[in-house]
Amino acid sequence: MLNDEWMKLALLEARKAEINNEVPVGAILINLQDSKIIEKSGNNMMSKSNPLAHAEIEIITKSLKNLKRKYLENTAIYVTLEPCMMCAAAISEARIKKVFFGAYDKKKGAYHNNDITNIKSYFKPEIYGGIMEKECSKIIRNFFKKIRLK
Amino acid sequence: MLNDEWMKLALLEARKAEINNEVPVGAILINLQDSKIIEKSGNNMMSKSNPLAHAEIEIITKSLKNLKRKYLENTAIYVTLEPCMMCAAAISEARIKKVFFGAYDKKKGAYHNNDITNIKSYFKPEIYGGIMEKECSKIIRNFFKKIRLK
Repeated sequence: MLNDEWMKLALLEARKAEINNEVPVGAILINLQDSKIIEKSGNNMMSKSNPLAHAEIEIITKSLKNLKRKYLENTAIYVTLEPCMMCAAAISEARIKKVFFGAYDKKKGAYHNNDITNIKSYFKPEIYGGIMEKECSKIIRNFFKKIRLK
Repeated sequence: MLNDEWMKLALLEARKAEINNEVPVGAILINLQDSKIIEKSGNNMMSKSNPLAHAEIEIITKSLKNLKRKYLENTAIYVTLEPCMMCAAAISEARIKKVFFGAYDKKKGAYHNNDITNIKSYFKPEIYGGIMEKECSKIIRNFFKKIRLK
């Protein structure tokens, strides 16, 4: 499947999150060996009342548990928004091989502005930004626009 | 209670972690209003088979759940090792007011070498490093020395 196709599935998770009043960010984790989906999740910060329950953290924790593995080598994560410092470090700790993200996050993004991969001690995944950027930016931008109008 | 007294309790958690074959890092979370302990934890990476289960993440998740709060304002965390990027970002997301750490972590530490608090979008806690540094460094150093000898 093409990157855009995977990102569409991550966008679906973002839309589901939005329905539940979450900041609309979604992610899927793919097994690079058989190209199957391991796990998918949106943000769960509101539903879990936990500011750490970003889509990436949710996916990593669930996948490790379900696969009964200690690391997530040979996997790729598709996430609609550039991971923050917490999630980027978690992605490195879990040794996820490839990161594909949609919208750039100029404020909290860990790769584009504040490059966490420059820190030698962290595992360095391959990073690909701007996948379906227009659609991924739009859903986040519209969400915050609606909040400001309330 | 003095900072050293609180750090001794965090060190106790680090020692308990070591008995369970964890990297010996321990932490406690204090309510700054009544100076009572909210939660304590060591690393749980081995026992949970989850490389994200650092002492700080464990404490934040447990405290939010038990207190039924969305943020941990007016709390202080005492942790035997300088938080990594993941934990420092999580501490900011949870709005913990004060961070006291023992040993400096030159490789993965988020405050001393790679200052996460320089990123404007992150909540900035008060940071105090080097509390009982000698004891906190020793337990980590000895642990890795033993591993190398094995």
